[in-house]
Amino acid sequence: MSLLVVGTVAFDAIETPFGKRDKIIGGSATYISLSASNFYKPIHIVSVVGSDFPKKTLSDFNKRGITTEGIQIKKGEKSFFWAGKYHMDMNSRDTLRTDLNVLADFNPVLPEKMRKPNMLLLGNIDPNLQIRVIEQLKTRPKLIAMDTMNFWMDIARPALDKVLTMVDVLIVNDEEARQLTGEYGIVKAAKKILKSGPKTVIIKKGEHGALLFQGDQVFFAPALPLEEVFDPTGAGDSFAGGFMGYLSKTGSLSFTNMKRAIIYGSAMASFCVEEFGPEKLLSLKKPQLKKRVQQFKDLSRVSITL
Amino acid sequence: MSLLVVGTVAFDAIETPFGKRDKIIGGSATYISLSASNFYKPIHIVSVVGSDFPKKTLSDFNKRGITTEGIQIKKGEKSFFWAGKYHMDMNSRDTLRTDLNVLADFNPVLPEKMRKPNMLLLGNIDPNLQIRVIEQLKTRPKLIAMDTMNFWMDIARPALDKVLTMVDVLIVNDEEARQLTGEYGIVKAAKKILKSGPKTVIIKKGEHGALLFQGDQVFFAPALPLEEVFDPTGAGDSFAGGFMGYLSKTGSLSFTNMKRAIIYGSAMASFCVEEFGPEKLLSLKKPQLKKRVQQFKDLSRVSITL
Repeated sequence: MSLLVVGTVAFDAIETPFGKRDKIIGGSATYISLSASNFYKPIHIVSVVGSDFPKKTLSDFNKRGITTEGIQIKKGEKSFFWAGKYHMDMNSRDTLRTDLNVLADFNPVLPEKMRKPNMLLLGNIDPNLQIRVIEQLKTRPKLIAMDTMNFWMDIARPALDKVLTMVDVLIVNDEEARQLTGEYGIVKAAKKILKSGPKTVIIKKGEHGALLFQGDQVFFAPALPLEEVFDPTGAGDSFAGGFMGYLSKTGSLSFTNMKRAIIYGSAMASFCVEEFGPEKLLSLKKPQLKKRVQQFKDLSRVSITL
Repeated sequence: MSLLVVGTVAFDAIETPFGKRDKIIGGSATYISLSASNFYKPIHIVSVVGSDFPKKTLSDFNKRGITTEGIQIKKGEKSFFWAGKYHMDMNSRDTLRTDLNVLADFNPVLPEKMRKPNMLLLGNIDPNLQIRVIEQLKTRPKLIAMDTMNFWMDIARPALDKVLTMVDVLIVNDEEARQLTGEYGIVKAAKKILKSGPKTVIIKKGEHGALLFQGDQVFFAPALPLEEVFDPTGAGDSFAGGFMGYLSKTGSLSFTNMKRAIIYGSAMASFCVEEFGPEKLLSLKKPQLKKRVQQFKDLSRVSITL
């Protein structure tokens, strides 16, 4: 039993109104795995880095129950690098630089022991690669979830449409849901996505919370109103990691349990944004998580007798 | 015992992506009172209209337990008129025309029987007039709530700062909270407002729900994810009317009851946007409201054992 995560392991340079980091560890698989490792082990990462990527980080991953045999290390090449800048409205950002490096010809190869995962989370990579990952599986996981972004809708729509028919859960933000469906309203967009393949869709709205749609059911999870948001980088991936980690830990895929998983995902996202990069995910202790989830419960608890 | 509402009673012309109305009944006091009348009677409106305002509408108000003796009718003058256009993003709108007409020299005079209201809601009018209303009261109401807007922050800041020290609850949207405090983050903005007078602040975020702050307590009420939003005009006022109507009906001003009141306010706003102008508020039946509040309860209900 394991959680398989496919995505990027990379370097980020981040600037926000509250500070700056020149070169820190980033990437979707990094945030997803670090977040999920607070719930479940083992987590297998399938990714690619250059020989510039610190061995120390990989061994830190291992200590948290995250295996790294699936991370290809390309000798003499450089890791994927992204630089971005956030403004006061932390919901939007400018990309300052994207160096694909090793990611340019990434071909995910699943080591034998990773071909029967319990659950699979496909981070935001080329949908053609997401398909290639699914095709290498020897058994169908209990749950396959995926992320994607506008870029792939623009340049790889047929592959994206295909992978959507192969997964159970799509996790996107509101803008992505709009572009994917051509529907401005979130409810209409969600309904259209539910007809395109995934039986469950999660639409993230950043500081405005997240919506879970399944059949005719809908659940809304608020985001915690935070006094200080230092760096939103990785919040969406931390959310997805918390969601999948909690489902892996608890096993149930009922709507009721998915609602709980979304609260845990939201809690992980709320931690992520409180410090730069994945710093907070690395230092997080169980009592802090428990306290945070209690805050989420209190935040929208209301007793009304009808 | 009564709920006193001071605000505009007017004509609106509205254009949304889904339709158009050339001249319908509008105004903050209209939406507030129609919404609140689903919970509580009597409601007294203090406002001003021209002789062009239909007697039929005033008598419709009366039938709903809304008194209109406090609405001055200026002979030979025209009622306040606002024309606006919404785009796909219903959170923003363009004002196409504002004819102040009778509003230009409005001087609210409270009839004798309205000077001891149980609760008072000051709609979005000149803060100098809001002060003048409070000064005419013979007893301090159990609760005074107020709305305002960016315009008054620009041109009447000293009066606005003064009226803030005279009220219990400020109800504003996120943009207004930002401009009022100079704080971008909603939590910081709310804390600053709580230091400026009101002991309670409600920050409305349109389709993203609403936040209630009081001391160190915070409550988040989601907005209902709606498939069809025809016309957002009056949603904020319907929210405020539902909030004050529910508090007037139930009497308790505890934080717990304010949370319930915000859910009822949100329910009223969700109805308001489903049809043009105040149409839906006029046709609403009790079972619909009950069903809607149940939807709100279900929307964010989650059971987590920690």
